[in-house]
Amino acid sequence: MFFVGTAGSVPTARRGLPALLVRRGGERLLFDCGEGTQRQLARSVGLLDLDEIFLTHYHADHWLGLPGLLKTFDLRGRERPLTLYGPPGLADLMVLALRAAGRVRFELSLVELEPGQVLERPGYKIAPLEVAHRGQAFGYVLYEDERPGAFDPAAAVALGLRPGPDFGRLQRGETVEGVRPEQVLGPPRPGRKLVLSGDTAPCQKISVASYQADLLVHEATFAAPETERAEETRHSTAAQAALLAREAEVRMLVLTHLSSRYPPGVLVEEAQELFADAVVARDFDLVELPLPERGRPELRPWDRRWTPPEDTVVPPPQETAVPPPEEVSSSS
Amino acid sequence: MFFVGTAGSVPTARRGLPALLVRRGGERLLFDCGEGTQRQLARSVGLLDLDEIFLTHYHADHWLGLPGLLKTFDLRGRERPLTLYGPPGLADLMVLALRAAGRVRFELSLVELEPGQVLERPGYKIAPLEVAHRGQAFGYVLYEDERPGAFDPAAAVALGLRPGPDFGRLQRGETVEGVRPEQVLGPPRPGRKLVLSGDTAPCQKISVASYQADLLVHEATFAAPETERAEETRHSTAAQAALLAREAEVRMLVLTHLSSRYPPGVLVEEAQELFADAVVARDFDLVELPLPERGRPELRPWDRRWTPPEDTVVPPPQETAVPPPEEVSSSS
Repeated sequence: MFFVGTAGSVPTARRGLPALLVRRGGERLLFDCGEGTQRQLARSVGLLDLDEIFLTHYHADHWLGLPGLLKTFDLRGRERPLTLYGPPGLADLMVLALRAAGRVRFELSLVELEPGQVLERPGYKIAPLEVAHRGQAFGYVLYEDERPGAFDPAAAVALGLRPGPDFGRLQRGETVEGVRPEQVLGPPRPGRKLVLSGDTAPCQKISVASYQADLLVHEATFAAPETERAEETRHSTAAQAALLAREAEVRMLVLTHLSSRYPPGVLVEEAQELFADAVVARDFDLVELPLPERGRPELRPWDRRWTPPEDTVVPPPQETAVPPPEEVSSSS
Repeated sequence: MFFVGTAGSVPTARRGLPALLVRRGGERLLFDCGEGTQRQLARSVGLLDLDEIFLTHYHADHWLGLPGLLKTFDLRGRERPLTLYGPPGLADLMVLALRAAGRVRFELSLVELEPGQVLERPGYKIAPLEVAHRGQAFGYVLYEDERPGAFDPAAAVALGLRPGPDFGRLQRGETVEGVRPEQVLGPPRPGRKLVLSGDTAPCQKISVASYQADLLVHEATFAAPETERAEETRHSTAAQAALLAREAEVRMLVLTHLSSRYPPGVLVEEAQELFADAVVARDFDLVELPLPERGRPELRPWDRRWTPPEDTVVPPPQETAVPPPEEVSSSS
């Protein structure tokens, strides 16, 4: 999970407008696409040929980067289709976005999601959550399928099996020489769960979906002294996000969508008083989510190791003839 | 003259999309407003409360930063009106831009310019130039009024006057004790002239307007080996811009609107072979234009000295309560 832009409403020198990149295996999903997202990507992990973009809602700060991103994909000769997901209204929004972008020749699919819908993926699911903002707005929960329980080799040996291919078959759920998998496997283990709040006042949908989540990324547009203002604008304070995280027993809370009017230290302090595992994201921060038994998630600055592997490096623009991109070369 | 964004079409890690800021006395004019312009300003000279924005044409890379910029002005409670200038079609564009921006409560004036029109300003003029791009597109020339000739104190003394207030009156064009200004002043001196090409193939309008200009900012989307491609897309090569600058006898040529596919060194070399006073702009570079008799213009990286004086520092967003902007505080 990579923080492409962590500002709310207005960008600052240090924070770009909202966008989050979720990577799982070879998949890369972008959530929201504020103005400047294509450049934020170019400045960090690279401007990937994304296949899917999810929008949380249609306030300007969450989608104004889309026309430029689509235009850039087109300029570099993209042919792969792209799918956009969002709350109802997506088709209307895209009429506007495409008029702004001008010609876009690759195929665009639009999927207007309904609350309660679940997108099935190999090994995980994505579900929109209706949150409490101005107008219809979504958060998203991404949760992996249950994994088989831990394998107990001693139990298998005690039942007369020998280490080797039989152990693998048992772990894949096969019965081997009369030994059933449930005799040598612990209880099924949950997959990882990631919850993205989008823009919202504290809301029960997020609270419920976040139960024991590995990571909750929650907006914190305000600090506690402005709780009333947060309620009026249907946003959250850092304290509210922390309280929700604590009650939901999440493993880690990352605050984002920050207003430029607070030093981030104020928000961290406010949140940590209520929930110790709370941090504030900066642009280009990264959280890797280990399997629960393998350690805790941790927020750290992105480094080149997270750069996409060779096969996803995108070609230079269509019109190319004289290669080396300027980043490689001269100037200071 | 401040280079807010120097990329053409597609932003890169180092270059934002097109925008130029021209400062003269207390006036600040923005030319073009590519996606991310508001953030480029926030990262450098500050997000000024601009009063006037000029667009060269309506390709996406030149205006997609406008909805977000207007939205941000609105969010921080702007009340001052803002005037937008551009080729015919501006009103249609702004219908689209305002639908994208959402609510904007300050007054917006739109001025569709015609080629040949001249905007009169105190001490200078701004004129759009019809250039050779795809669809109607403008460059702009900004030229100051003629200044009185150089005052010759020795001549005044020889004519019987004494240094003091009389000298000032003569320089302001008054006749003093029978001495007429033309007796003690040299020939009128030209003001400064700045030409912005916008996106264009080499074109005579720019060539003529650039005659002895102090500064020509010309696009250089391509290098010479792609002259044909430049012609097809109605852009220029660095060599073409240099040749035009040389023939027009400009004092300095700055190349901008660069494609990411050339190292800037290639373009500088190509241009300097034809015209020695050619340079390539980087984002946040600055050119100050001294009066011709006071030295040559020079391209240098922006520094804090060019930051707007106190009185133009903009208030934090409307909803403010807890001030210090995050830039002032903690984090790395």
